[in-house]
Amino acid sequence: MSETVPAARRGRPRDPDVEERVFDAAIELYGRSGWAGFNFEGVARASGIGKAALYRRWSNRAELLNDVLKARWIRVADIDTGDIRGDLLAVAGILLDILTGIQGDVYLRILMDTRLHPEVHDATADYRAGVVTPSRAMVHRAVARGELPEGTSPGLVIDLVVGAVQNHVLTTPPELRTRMLSQMHTYAEQVVDTVLHGIRH
Amino acid sequence: MSETVPAARRGRPRDPDVEERVFDAAIELYGRSGWAGFNFEGVARASGIGKAALYRRWSNRAELLNDVLKARWIRVADIDTGDIRGDLLAVAGILLDILTGIQGDVYLRILMDTRLHPEVHDATADYRAGVVTPSRAMVHRAVARGELPEGTSPGLVIDLVVGAVQNHVLTTPPELRTRMLSQMHTYAEQVVDTVLHGIRH
Repeated sequence: MSETVPAARRGRPRDPDVEERVFDAAIELYGRSGWAGFNFEGVARASGIGKAALYRRWSNRAELLNDVLKARWIRVADIDTGDIRGDLLAVAGILLDILTGIQGDVYLRILMDTRLHPEVHDATADYRAGVVTPSRAMVHRAVARGELPEGTSPGLVIDLVVGAVQNHVLTTPPELRTRMLSQMHTYAEQVVDTVLHGIRH
Repeated sequence: MSETVPAARRGRPRDPDVEERVFDAAIELYGRSGWAGFNFEGVARASGIGKAALYRRWSNRAELLNDVLKARWIRVADIDTGDIRGDLLAVAGILLDILTGIQGDVYLRILMDTRLHPEVHDATADYRAGVVTPSRAMVHRAVARGELPEGTSPGLVIDLVVGAVQNHVLTTPPELRTRMLSQMHTYAEQVVDTVLHGIRH
């Protein structure tokens, strides 16, 4: 939304369509090339938006990556179904969609690049906070509602659900991919129910 | 062991020290550069073994990667503690060691490269089978011993344990790394116990 852009960010384009085109091109380029190949030249070429216009909006590629991830990535903050099973199924569903779609490469690139490049780690801090903070809040709400025991570790719950889904998709060989895709919803339920039973024990 | 090398692989060096030096250099190079930078020139330079000697032993870099992973990677087949909790703690422990050590990059590279490059997928088939087959056997043994219910999905158990450990290490920010390392063993127990309780429910 252009009206939410701070005044200090003068010169940024007011046309939201331009931003959308840049984000679409940039997330695709990042997934394909990672940090090593993520630059304004490539984004300009893929989006059809001139480099000068990109530089007016973002002072460097790290700032651009941060905005791209915030605009195109997992929106855990929007999830609040009223119970923890529904919330975790929603997280698993979004993650399954991402990992089995074209953005799956982005997911792995972020894990790799934040590990290898301190500037990517810094550039993706907002994005991580935007995933981690609402994930923790989700578990805290469940504890407050009496759905999970006092003292439940949000990190443990999230690691189990997110990690299982991640490992499932990333290690399924191509020849079993069709079957995996058709059984994704059932798998998500198995994961979430196993985790909830385990945590409640 | 040189005596187990099939005769058809004539000309391969008989000196096991040479292989060890190649494997050490190759796994380090692969972790640092991934498939894109994994070549005989780099391995020769890093190991001090001539390119000609490498070509006598491996006809291409995919074959070399396959042997490197089999020699230097997770040996699930060796794990058999007598009960499923011990087995899963051993898996979690090995994985924690790998992910928090210099081979952590190799782990992510394999996930990424098998996704992007069919030749890496093919080259790593033996390695995957060497992890997947004994992992499934581990769960089947537990079912046979009556420790887990009939029909327990080995994939679900492994995804939960491996995935949680993986997500835990890969998403821990640098500033919390020291604390994570000091609490790794407790974390592995929490994961394994939660999964076992959840599966047994």
